[in-house]
Order: sequence, then structure tokens, then C-alpha cells
Amino acid sequence: MNSAENNIDDVIDTEGLDAFLQYEAGSDINHQYLTGFKASDSFTFLRYKGKSILLVAPVEKAKAESQSDADVVRSTAEFVTGDVRDDIEAEASVISDFVSEYDIEDIGVHRGFSLYIAEVLTNDGFSVRSVDDVVMSARKSKSKNELAKLKNAQLVTEGAMELSKETIRESTVVDGELFFDGEPLTSERFRNILRDFFRSQNCVLDEAIVACGTQSADPHNRGSGVLMANEPILLDIFPRHKSGYWGDMSRTFVKGEPSEELQRMYDTTLDAFVAATDVLSMGAGVTGQEVHNKVCDVFESAGYPTIRGGDIDEGFLHSTGHAIGLELHEPPRLVGGSGKLKEGYVLTVEPGLYKKEFGGVRIEDMVVVTEDGYSNFNNLSPDFRL
Amino acid sequence: MNSAENNIDDVIDTEGLDAFLQYEAGSDINHQYLTGFKASDSFTFLRYKGKSILLVAPVEKAKAESQSDADVVRSTAEFVTGDVRDDIEAEASVISDFVSEYDIEDIGVHRGFSLYIAEVLTNDGFSVRSVDDVVMSARKSKSKNELAKLKNAQLVTEGAMELSKETIRESTVVDGELFFDGEPLTSERFRNILRDFFRSQNCVLDEAIVACGTQSADPHNRGSGVLMANEPILLDIFPRHKSGYWGDMSRTFVKGEPSEELQRMYDTTLDAFVAATDVLSMGAGVTGQEVHNKVCDVFESAGYPTIRGGDIDEGFLHSTGHAIGLELHEPPRLVGGSGKLKEGYVLTVEPGLYKKEFGGVRIEDMVVVTEDGYSNFNNLSPDFRL
Repeated sequence: MNSAENNIDDVIDTEGLDAFLQYEAGSDINHQYLTGFKASDSFTFLRYKGKSILLVAPVEKAKAESQSDADVVRSTAEFVTGDVRDDIEAEASVISDFVSEYDIEDIGVHRGFSLYIAEVLTNDGFSVRSVDDVVMSARKSKSKNELAKLKNAQLVTEGAMELSKETIRESTVVDGELFFDGEPLTSERFRNILRDFFRSQNCVLDEAIVACGTQSADPHNRGSGVLMANEPILLDIFPRHKSGYWGDMSRTFVKGEPSEELQRMYDTTLDAFVAATDVLSMGAGVTGQEVHNKVCDVFESAGYPTIRGGDIDEGFLHSTGHAIGLELHEPPRLVGGSGKLKEGYVLTVEPGLYKKEFGGVRIEDMVVVTEDGYSNFNNLSPDFRL
Repeated sequence: MNSAENNIDDVIDTEGLDAFLQYEAGSDINHQYLTGFKASDSFTFLRYKGKSILLVAPVEKAKAESQSDADVVRSTAEFVTGDVRDDIEAEASVISDFVSEYDIEDIGVHRGFSLYIAEVLTNDGFSVRSVDDVVMSARKSKSKNELAKLKNAQLVTEGAMELSKETIRESTVVDGELFFDGEPLTSERFRNILRDFFRSQNCVLDEAIVACGTQSADPHNRGSGVLMANEPILLDIFPRHKSGYWGDMSRTFVKGEPSEELQRMYDTTLDAFVAATDVLSMGAGVTGQEVHNKVCDVFESAGYPTIRGGDIDEGFLHSTGHAIGLELHEPPRLVGGSGKLKEGYVLTVEPGLYKKEFGGVRIEDMVVVTEDGYSNFNNLSPDFRL
């Protein structure tokens, strides 16, 4: 039994339900986490009397039996002839017939459960209501196995950051522009170098931020064109490993000499990063808001505005970090209002400063919250000038 | 007004509703199609008195105003302080406050609408019920612009299939295994060759089936290990073009000599493919079921069981095809119970046969249904032995 199933059994008990039902696309991450099954199409999960039962398309049955964590796998072909995928009316009717085979009246469902299927079940005499997000709350605390996968994804990402440093170090400067292997080093080419690296490491890199100069002042700008000397080169790299888990790491480098203000932005961001980890070293029980507030304190003391003070377009523009796992961005965020962090939460810590005239700086590692502190998955020193 | 909005106004009229509400993730394709807006986070669409109104997070407002098709864009900041993204309870409350500002009691929603939000709205005195899938039904008939994009995506996919043929043709056989450029030709390496090709063609290839031998007997097996001579090599290639539209094409090849039974499976599958296109040549008005039944007739006449006869694990295991567009799999499928095909429907036609001892065979093209026939986007000959 995984921790999501455990949460479900608890909610069935406390809410006086007979069963819990989840119907989602095979691509839905909560569905994959709950069932251990990554299907091409929508399928149904039923938790009933301590057992997990899947209802899948006939063509997925063998795969579900070999890959999923379910106790029982059933096929829609037991209820209807042919293939009902993508036919929501037929699927709703099959789900109703399927649930009817058990001794079930009161059904709890996840909050995103289809209103239409709920209507069909209600018409067929069932009582259906949504319950708290039991799967997402299980996902927040990572298991040992998940921690190993996240650490592995992050170490590969760190390898890409080492490669990035080497690439910038080895490049030459001609008229203020970076050249590598005799050709201009552009953001686009840099991303392809990273993509090739990740492919060799069982990871997929869809996008990455390689933003230089004033481009980096916008935290969402992916970057384009030739990289320049004496300007910030902001790298934010977030691949998905074959295991399903994500890496996410940022560094900012300068080839040559940064301006005095850029150096000050960098030093302040590093101070903010250290301040965040100081708070995290108190371990489980500290709140995300405390971490974020400490980062804002450091920035504001140095004279930089922060998001805490309202709508701004320069300074510290975003949250201090976010949870990460099977999705790149998971709740909770490290931001105002964020609650207590528990053991096993995996989070990015990524303070940054942005000024339109000078560009942006961001330093990002991945950490796991432990009972009495935290552990940083990264080892790479926060170099700046290359 | 786009055709989805047109459908919505019709359903508001015929069902006696005051408004139509859709709340979905920004990544939801129906949501993107309906609103013309691709957001990073969930947002709300309201159709009321012939106007389309969006409710988005504060950080998305400017982007929604410049990119979406909506008449009015509003921000959640009008209703609540701070950022409510990822907080479904706060979002549901904001949606209720937002709808309360209009003269609305009876609300129609899409079938996948969150049961939880429906419960919140019901508690607040609204009447909420699901209506027919108005957006998806608009998406089924592709516009001229969409047809051009799909044809383009499929022609790039055909280019990848040509490249695949050349790669298999040029490979040598050593001890029954394929070698290309002096190294073993594995499924994994083949997929990387395809990925490189698609990257150069503005497409992303996430996965592809390159399954050899008995692996190919499971229609969903992606394939692994070295490709072998005298065995089926089943290629099913489905990239997404930068335009957002998908290609999807399958061929089966043998390097060397197929077994007698494999050759018979191939010939029968090709007969079934031709039979499907014979039915499609009647054009709009023919049903998906008629196409599928004809394919099943061909297979059954040749002695192969089909999915039409019930739960099987060998023979013709899946539907004859599926619609395709902004998603790889869209309704309708070509399968038992499938209704009339209309002008502008774009479908794959992909009969296949699978036997555990011999492997699998599949032939797949993409076609558009026209008023009096169909047009095949593909031109590649159905070669088998290479």
C-alpha cells in the first residue's frame, strides 16, 4: 500500500464512504502516482475495502497487470463490446456498471472528478462527493525511492552545469562576443549542447533558460542570440529524467568582468541563498513563509525591493522556491502564506535579483527537508566569474 | 466568434441556460481552442449574453489581453488579494464571486468540469449541470488553416519514415542483427536518429514505437534492444509540430525474409487498409463503424480474430483509427458504434495484426474526409521487405 492509498483509506473511514473513485487521463500525474501506471488513455481507479482495482481499456490490460501497483486489473471489455476510449458517455456508463458490482453507495472522488460522470452515477443511484486532495498531499513527502530518483536527476543537472561552466570558460571573446569551437556561442546553440548532454544521460531537456545581458532581467525570458562577455549569463536548467522525476538548477556566470552593481547583486543573492538555508537548517516544522521572509529581509536590507512589498518590476520578483517531483512545479511554494514544511519535502531554493539596466542573477539548488535540518542535493560551488 | 463559441450560444439557448462556464488548466487543449489563449496556469472562461469573458491570474492578464480571443479579460486580483493559483479552494470561491456579478442562475459547464467547484457553486445558490461537449464537437471539423497544419506535420512524419527505410536498407546484418554505421542498430538509437531529424524540422518527438520481433506483438510496446533481420520492425511515429498539430504514421518493414505467416499477416493488413479507404471514398456521411466493420470483415475472412468479437489477445486488437489535431488522439475513433463522419474530419487509418509468436504488423496513414470522398495526406508506398 502506498501513502496515497493510505490517505484514501483514512478519508473513506472519516467521511463514512464506501469507496473512492478516480477517473483521469493516463497523463495525469496524480493518477500515475496513485496507481503506479502510466497509460496512454484515461482509466479508472477504485479503492474499495482496502483493495485497489483498475478499470482499463482492453488494449492496456496486460501492461496494467505488469506495471501497476493495483491488486486487481479489470477491462472495460467485461462491460461493453469494443473500445470505449474517448467516448465519455460510454465510459461513464461502463464506470457505473463497474461500481455496481460492488457493495457501494457513497463514493468519494477527487476534486477534479468530471461533473458529467458524477451526474451519471448520481442518476444511477449513487451518492458522489469530492474529498480533500489525498493524492497530492501524499506526493508532498517523498519516499526514499523518490528521494534517490530526485537526487539522481539533480546530479545529472549539476553535470550539465559543470559542462556549461567549461563551455563558457573555454570560449574565447571576439569583439565582446563569445566564440566556442570557432563559432559564435548563442543561447540556441547552448541549449542544443545541453540537450545532447541530457540525452546521453537518460534525460529529456525540453527548454532551458540561457539568457544573457538585459534579457536575463526578465525571469521568464529563455534567451536568444550570441552570449556576451562582461554580462550576466543566467542558466536555469530543468530536465526530466527517464525515471519521471525532474532536476532544476540555476547559476549565473560572467565571462570577464561584471559591473560593480552586477557584482553587488550577485553577492546579495548569495547572501540571500545562505540565509534561506540557515532557516531550513531548523528542519521539519519551519514554514515556507519563514524561509521566504528571511530571503526578503536580506534583499530589502541591501536596498532591493521584493515581491513581499507588492507589485514590482525590479528586485526580487518571484517566490523563493517550489516543491518538485514528478512535476517541475509542485505545491508548496516558498512564499508568503506558505505553511509548515515536513520531512521528505523536496524544494528548490532560488533567490534572484533583476534590474532592467544590469540583467538578472539567480542561484538555485535542490534540497530535501529532514527531521532536524535539510540536505542539499547539489555540491557545485557558486562560482560567478569564469 | 469562433465555431466553439457558436456551439456554446446554441446550447445556452436550447437548454435554457444563463451562461456557460469552463475552468481548466492552461495546458488543456479544449481550453486553448475555445479561448485562443495558452496560459501557464488554470483559468476560467465565461460565456454570457454573447460575450466571452476570461478570469485569469494577475500575472497572466496582459498576456491574455494581447493573445486571447476574449471580449473581456478580468483578473482574480479584483476578488482576492494575492495569487490563488494552485489553491483550488480559493479559486472556487473567486469563481463564485465572479459569476455572482452577472445576472446568472443556471450555468452549463463542460463534462470534465471539476465536481468540487460545482459543489461550491451549488452551495452558493447556482444551478450547475454539464452539457454536451460543445468545444470538442467544434474541433472535429478542421478549418482550412488546420488542415494545412496537419498535412504539413504528416509530410514531415513521412520524411522520417523515408529516413527510417533508408536506415534499415543501408544497415548490414551480422549474426542476424542489424548494424548501421558500424554499430548495432537498436530501438533506442533509432529513436534518437528520428528525434534529431524532427528537431531539424520544427517538430518534437517524445516517443516512437520501434519494436522488433515478438515485441511488436504488443501494440503499445515501444521496443528495445538490437533490431533483427527476418523479423517485423514496426515503426509508429507521432511527432508534434511547432504549430501544435500532430503527425502520426506507421509502417512495418522486414530486413531480409519474413516468415510465411508474417507475409500473410502483412498482405491481409494491406487488404484491410485498402478496404477501409474503399469505404471512406463514399465521403462525408459514412460512419466510423462502417469503416471499422469492413476492416474486421477482411481480417475475419482471412481467419484472424478481431476486437469486434470480444476480448482477444491476438489478431486485430484495436480500433481502425482515430481523429487527430491539436491532440494525438481525438474523438471520434473508427470503431464499433462510431457515428457519421463529416467533412473536414481528419483521421488515421491504421489496421494491424498481432500474433505472439510472429510479432505485429501495422500500416497507418492520415486522411481527411471530404464531401464526396477522402484525401490521403500520405504518399509513401507500403513497402514491406527492405
